[in-house]
Amino acid sequence: MKTLYELLYEYKETDYYPFHMPGHKRKSVDGNCEVLEEVHQIDITEIDGFDNLHHAEGVLKMAQERVARLYGAEESFFLINGSTGGLLSAISAVCECNKKVLICRNSHKAVYNALAVNKVCAEYVWPSYIEERDLIGKIEPYEIAKILEKNKDINAVVVTSPTYDGVVSDVKQIAEIVHHYNIPLIVDEAHGAHFAFDDRFPKSAVSEGADIVINSTHKTLPAMTQTALLHVQGNLVNRSRLKNYLQIYQTSSPSYVLMASIDSCMQMLEKEGSRFFDRLFILRREIDDFSKGLKCLQIVSTEIAEPGKIIVSTKNTNLSGQELYEILLNKYHIQMEMAGFNYVVGILTAMDTEEGVCRLLTALEAIDEELDVRKGIGEATKEAKDNQSKMEFYRVENAIAQTYHEAMNQKSEWIELGGAAGRAAGAMIVLYPPGIPVLVPGEIIEEEIIQQLEIALTKKMNVLGLSQDENKICVLCE
Amino acid sequence: MKTLYELLYEYKETDYYPFHMPGHKRKSVDGNCEVLEEVHQIDITEIDGFDNLHHAEGVLKMAQERVARLYGAEESFFLINGSTGGLLSAISAVCECNKKVLICRNSHKAVYNALAVNKVCAEYVWPSYIEERDLIGKIEPYEIAKILEKNKDINAVVVTSPTYDGVVSDVKQIAEIVHHYNIPLIVDEAHGAHFAFDDRFPKSAVSEGADIVINSTHKTLPAMTQTALLHVQGNLVNRSRLKNYLQIYQTSSPSYVLMASIDSCMQMLEKEGSRFFDRLFILRREIDDFSKGLKCLQIVSTEIAEPGKIIVSTKNTNLSGQELYEILLNKYHIQMEMAGFNYVVGILTAMDTEEGVCRLLTALEAIDEELDVRKGIGEATKEAKDNQSKMEFYRVENAIAQTYHEAMNQKSEWIELGGAAGRAAGAMIVLYPPGIPVLVPGEIIEEEIIQQLEIALTKKMNVLGLSQDENKICVLCE
Repeated sequence: MKTLYELLYEYKETDYYPFHMPGHKRKSVDGNCEVLEEVHQIDITEIDGFDNLHHAEGVLKMAQERVARLYGAEESFFLINGSTGGLLSAISAVCECNKKVLICRNSHKAVYNALAVNKVCAEYVWPSYIEERDLIGKIEPYEIAKILEKNKDINAVVVTSPTYDGVVSDVKQIAEIVHHYNIPLIVDEAHGAHFAFDDRFPKSAVSEGADIVINSTHKTLPAMTQTALLHVQGNLVNRSRLKNYLQIYQTSSPSYVLMASIDSCMQMLEKEGSRFFDRLFILRREIDDFSKGLKCLQIVSTEIAEPGKIIVSTKNTNLSGQELYEILLNKYHIQMEMAGFNYVVGILTAMDTEEGVCRLLTALEAIDEELDVRKGIGEATKEAKDNQSKMEFYRVENAIAQTYHEAMNQKSEWIELGGAAGRAAGAMIVLYPPGIPVLVPGEIIEEEIIQQLEIALTKKMNVLGLSQDENKICVLCE
Repeated sequence: MKTLYELLYEYKETDYYPFHMPGHKRKSVDGNCEVLEEVHQIDITEIDGFDNLHHAEGVLKMAQERVARLYGAEESFFLINGSTGGLLSAISAVCECNKKVLICRNSHKAVYNALAVNKVCAEYVWPSYIEERDLIGKIEPYEIAKILEKNKDINAVVVTSPTYDGVVSDVKQIAEIVHHYNIPLIVDEAHGAHFAFDDRFPKSAVSEGADIVINSTHKTLPAMTQTALLHVQGNLVNRSRLKNYLQIYQTSSPSYVLMASIDSCMQMLEKEGSRFFDRLFILRREIDDFSKGLKCLQIVSTEIAEPGKIIVSTKNTNLSGQELYEILLNKYHIQMEMAGFNYVVGILTAMDTEEGVCRLLTALEAIDEELDVRKGIGEATKEAKDNQSKMEFYRVENAIAQTYHEAMNQKSEWIELGGAAGRAAGAMIVLYPPGIPVLVPGEIIEEEIIQQLEIALTKKMNVLGLSQDENKICVLCE
């Protein structure tokens, strides 16, 4: 069976003349954009022989069947609007009027958005907290059981596992609890697309019994940004409703380049199997061995975060995560994925090189050495770090003035952050990490939250939703 | 000002090592997928220096400002989930509870979907019909005036102009009428992204006073499939609501390759201006001159369809559109955009070549010659063509059992098309062309519609929503 890429590549060598879209006619305007010129050659639309993603009957049907086989799912779908499109579709498919959905508070904003567009309210389950590492932890199954027992109007559960930091929850036990209530479990496994392929990773949510699972292929597998997968199994989800939403939230002109990228990745994984991940584990062992020699910095063990995440903790140093991130970037030309207050996250995949990991470890060694000698080279003092309690951000149970979907239809305005106490948030404020929304639209902004946001801004942390230049916040008009 | 592509290209030459997404780490797995390997080199995520589409402050902000300048819009946005994502966002931003939206019945399915997810009902305006060409015509301004006068609960209007076939409505007059009621006009100008750049094209909807305009850059400009633009002006649209929906319906991991493709296209158009379209008009003149010599086939004049659409009518021949389409494809290796019952559509852009157009004209000449000699070489007889009245498909005012959004939450089943009379449709059935939904979910399936769908299937027309192999139709469970 040929991959979509192979068919596209063959087709570009034929003499078929295109009086169809796209308008570039498989060429580039001039010689300046050579990469775009290359890619235009395989960028087509739904012409004869190339199937239709939203009514797949040929190559795209077979390609999606391959995905289902590889993940052990009953049915799988290519996503070309990212995991965002998959979450919107999955949640819309299970939402019902006057019912609630139980979600973890550290859900991706797409989960909140999906509920809002469906005018459905959320019940929250709070993840645990790993104090020694300042990391958001697992979702505890008994917490879910408790909430489901109390709220009979919940008709679906959405859990994020792994988290951005690679912390995995016990999906099997959660699925059993959720299924006891005869409702579906959706797992946002965006960061775990690689789990299904190798026993050395945590078990995949599909194999653990989730009803819908969403995987970002671009995050941890070798596929292009914006590509993802959705898997469905069992009979708790209305599949025709799900399919309808997939064509609602994804363009009717999907990119054949993005789809070819997913398909080629899947073909490779089918061929290579777990062998493909050998390099990742060799590099991982180097990292873990190396970490034993660190004096100040610490690398979070794979017992806490799955092997694909390199988490360097600055907790017991005077360096903030952001400072370490910047040293790595500016001095060593190492671009990490993100910085938290007390740690830095890197993504490790089977595509990484010995040279890259070696450079990271050499850099960390030098930084660690200097930290040890000078007892802290960063600007972040121990005191400031103590003031910054991540725990407060972690568990903000704000009063709710309006639901998110009510707030969406309200007029809003931007005002000074300092003067926003008592007003209702007009936009979602998310601090990365931990990626928990500090404020959901409609929630009351308490003085305490304002103070914490101000600290985060001073520390140059990644606060999405504020106007970073002017310290303004969006609030609902009164 | 450097384009995003230039920045990405420069970046790939640096020694920054990526411990971030995407998982391919800017490389390809093996040497087999050379085009993907090339494109992976510029496929990154929101790393330092590359801005964030949903909070644009750097290169993406400047790139979008360039678009606004070029289109003469107050504000413009890159779309990476196609015009679909733009229509969803635009319509969601104007929908209000208990209000209606006036849409043309030949709207793209995304328009219907947008109303359904917002649980808002549509009022329809029917386009006129060009009998001599069997083409869907303009939306008449006075029809809109009539409907708005009668329905005071309409709070927005959505018009498609140009149509898939290139027929343009008088957006200026429509905008004046709509603004008289102090409500916004959204124009789905997906097929008219090129209008803004050259006076030889019809006027662009932005310049004609529409409040929101959506353009597919991939359809008629040299940009990649799945790319599009949204422009907004005036104060009838709540912009923060619009921006919120743009980040809801578009992935939080947008493809830098797709964005670079839009940006490079815009930079080129800024530099070249209308000169870029000279080739299109030279080719167009050749086509028009050639068309005078045709005996049986006819090419629709640019007075009816804008210059970027080559519409070859088979109306006065025994050949169906589908037959002509297949002859062009199989005998001449010319891939047209689509086939109607009585015509074939090709997309002509400034990226077409003399060779391509010459091949098309030579092919049409030979086919026309043979038609003249043998008085019809097709299987479609004159009688069959007369039986197939496109008029009936054109104006189907079905009884409504349920609204689309009510129908979305119903269970549905697939049954034989022949036995579906009296049931309510469970999925949208769209015939391309004309692209008017024959059935919207919730509408009653009349015997007459079934007969017409059966004819369309026999004629191998493009009917989306039926299971083409088994002639089954999705209906709501009773």
